[in-house]
Amino acid sequence: MSHTADQQRRAAREHYNASLGDCPARQLLEAISGKWVTLVMLALAEGRQRHSDLRRKIPGVSQKMLTSTLRSLERDGLVSRELTAQVPVRTDYELTARGHSLLRIVFELKDWAEENKEDVASSRLEHDIGLPAVN
Amino acid sequence: MSHTADQQRRAAREHYNASLGDCPARQLLEAISGKWVTLVMLALAEGRQRHSDLRRKIPGVSQKMLTSTLRSLERDGLVSRELTAQVPVRTDYELTARGHSLLRIVFELKDWAEENKEDVASSRLEHDIGLPAVN
Repeated sequence: MSHTADQQRRAAREHYNASLGDCPARQLLEAISGKWVTLVMLALAEGRQRHSDLRRKIPGVSQKMLTSTLRSLERDGLVSRELTAQVPVRTDYELTARGHSLLRIVFELKDWAEENKEDVASSRLEHDIGLPAVN
Repeated sequence: MSHTADQQRRAAREHYNASLGDCPARQLLEAISGKWVTLVMLALAEGRQRHSDLRRKIPGVSQKMLTSTLRSLERDGLVSRELTAQVPVRTDYELTARGHSLLRIVFELKDWAEENKEDVASSRLEHDIGLPAVN
């Protein structure tokens, strides 16, 4: 029986989908690798906050995206939500201990971005005007 | 002059958009905080590879998404691309030194996901069946 490269590729991918694709570690890695997760966690680094505070701090985030990111972080035990009985009901969000353990790595990503922003900007410029990049 | 909370929020967001929104560090942080960036970088951790190898290693990635992620990583100087004259032309991708410096942090994210997958799964279960999560 002969297989084309495409058939082989499809079979290999199906195999991976059945193993790695269902792997909880990969799913979790994907869940924490989103730009809104990163930005919301950094905003929460400053401490307990309301939805409106977070929305003000994170430029470009929509109400819907912020709500869905916070729900996902809460579901994963990274953020806790506290309701205070007042009119209207006040909702505060805060990083949990688990959230803080991930925040440590998010801070490293942020520091890396700060340290590399000029070099990356140079690479982009060289790439866009077609010069060979120096690496 | 009086302002509603909504007007104040809008003004604050515009202010942030004008400063942070254009900030190269934030843009870079957003660029490196994508699930495909994370998964492609991890696949490239194993060394120099062809597009087809990467595609086989990363379940669920489309040809288009892999191409666009690799282009963006190349433009940012994180990945280098080498063409070999043969028929068809062979293209290999490899992490640059800058890519390896970011990979170090991506490995930490991966380790965090491995270490926390059971706890996160428990939190999700508790959340989904409506029990209070223990944090």
